[in-house]
Amino acid sequence: MTARMLVDGVASVQVSALDRGLAYGDGLFESIRLIGTIAPLWSRHMRRLAEGCARLYIPAPDPAQLWREALEVSCGMAASVLRITVTRGIGERGYGLPAAPRPTRVVAAFAPPPVAAGVYAQGVRMRVCNIRLAEQPLLAGLKHLNRLEQVLARAEWNDPAIAEGVLLDSHGRVISATMANLFAVVDGELLTPALDRCGVAGVARAEVLAACPQVRVGELTLAALRGAGEVFLSSSVRGILPVRSLDDGSYAPGATTRRLQQHWCDLGFSMEQGE
Amino acid sequence: MTARMLVDGVASVQVSALDRGLAYGDGLFESIRLIGTIAPLWSRHMRRLAEGCARLYIPAPDPAQLWREALEVSCGMAASVLRITVTRGIGERGYGLPAAPRPTRVVAAFAPPPVAAGVYAQGVRMRVCNIRLAEQPLLAGLKHLNRLEQVLARAEWNDPAIAEGVLLDSHGRVISATMANLFAVVDGELLTPALDRCGVAGVARAEVLAACPQVRVGELTLAALRGAGEVFLSSSVRGILPVRSLDDGSYAPGATTRRLQQHWCDLGFSMEQGE
Repeated sequence: MTARMLVDGVASVQVSALDRGLAYGDGLFESIRLIGTIAPLWSRHMRRLAEGCARLYIPAPDPAQLWREALEVSCGMAASVLRITVTRGIGERGYGLPAAPRPTRVVAAFAPPPVAAGVYAQGVRMRVCNIRLAEQPLLAGLKHLNRLEQVLARAEWNDPAIAEGVLLDSHGRVISATMANLFAVVDGELLTPALDRCGVAGVARAEVLAACPQVRVGELTLAALRGAGEVFLSSSVRGILPVRSLDDGSYAPGATTRRLQQHWCDLGFSMEQGE
Repeated sequence: MTARMLVDGVASVQVSALDRGLAYGDGLFESIRLIGTIAPLWSRHMRRLAEGCARLYIPAPDPAQLWREALEVSCGMAASVLRITVTRGIGERGYGLPAAPRPTRVVAAFAPPPVAAGVYAQGVRMRVCNIRLAEQPLLAGLKHLNRLEQVLARAEWNDPAIAEGVLLDSHGRVISATMANLFAVVDGELLTPALDRCGVAGVARAEVLAACPQVRVGELTLAALRGAGEVFLSSSVRGILPVRSLDDGSYAPGATTRRLQQHWCDLGFSMEQGE
């Protein structure tokens, strides 16, 4: 994996081994799709990052500075994925917050992940994961660095034909995919799970909610998901992905999915549809 | 904070910014008390680390190599605390496990944390934290790098007279302190919480369980804790700490606490009692 990277504004590929991001996962990140020098969802990413910093008591970085660094690391790339990581920085040993925190910021640009041919047209295959997400309202919604549940979920399968897994909470409610949010049309109504107890409130999900004011945010059971007429995933990196199957059940990409894919094109993400 | 450190066996104070330990908290750690060149609980630490690696599918480091590195970083220190961090290493972007993982290992030695005068004799003051630990059986017991709950718990208070906080799970059961395990004598029986849904199964706790076969591992309610005759904390770094108060209630250090403090002395931790 090659990446161009700035650590606290300086070209570097390393961070302190005493950083609390490493010691405790004490920080946040954003994965941001760039088309040349355009990041259509930038302001939503910055809003989520600021909210996450506030909830974790980490001084928020300056978005203008992050944008300058984003342009620097992605310079010359026709398309890229930025990863911005913000940690609480180096701290004394122990969990207590440093009296004078100096957050660490890492801005890195990567080549976009490959998306298999036909995925945007026909959709991805999914399975239901065995792991159940733990419910922690104080961290729910945040894109924080404590992601072992997602690592364990993704380790459950290695069939390359399966692109994603459905994550349930400990009560069996559908929450999301491992790296995307999930929407389903159930009895004609567009639904996405509430994320106040677990899950990551994706920036692409926020864009869908803004584009479709009729979406109901609430409880989605696995039975309702299996019986849905249309299912799709939203991802700031991959856009709108139809779901073609869940275990043995299948779906056809429907009108809502196509309308949102078109919305994504209109935002400037047109390259994604053609990959 | 100064520390002597080896990263993958090489003197360094940095790790790759692409390490999954930073990206996802994808790893484990051990905090180990050394008295000169003796680590009385070393084999328990190595056992827990191996178990954690197995549960997270991380190739386990060689304990003999870790021990050589521990002696190197702590050389010349009369007393020290080692932190051994093992991560899944550098990975491709995304949660999927690398096909050929190369774990990262960081071995660092620090001066032991100061312990206030009289603490071992009279005990520490505690409060009950507001945060409730989320229940994730697949991670329960492990000393993994996803520690945001502990960071948020410790951020709840800054009164230096309060040394520790009681953590409850989402059902209100007592689990532990923020950086120690907890034992209580309730109706004459020595009890410590079960840690199969959340919490860290401390190495010092394991030593207490081995030394006191009569300990019952089970459910401890907050009401039972408040009414306990004797409460103490176990920590691989701090040893056996009597608890003198919880919110407005108080305890006197009792015979069990004193017997276990003596056991800690017998193990070779005698310096701790005198700090």
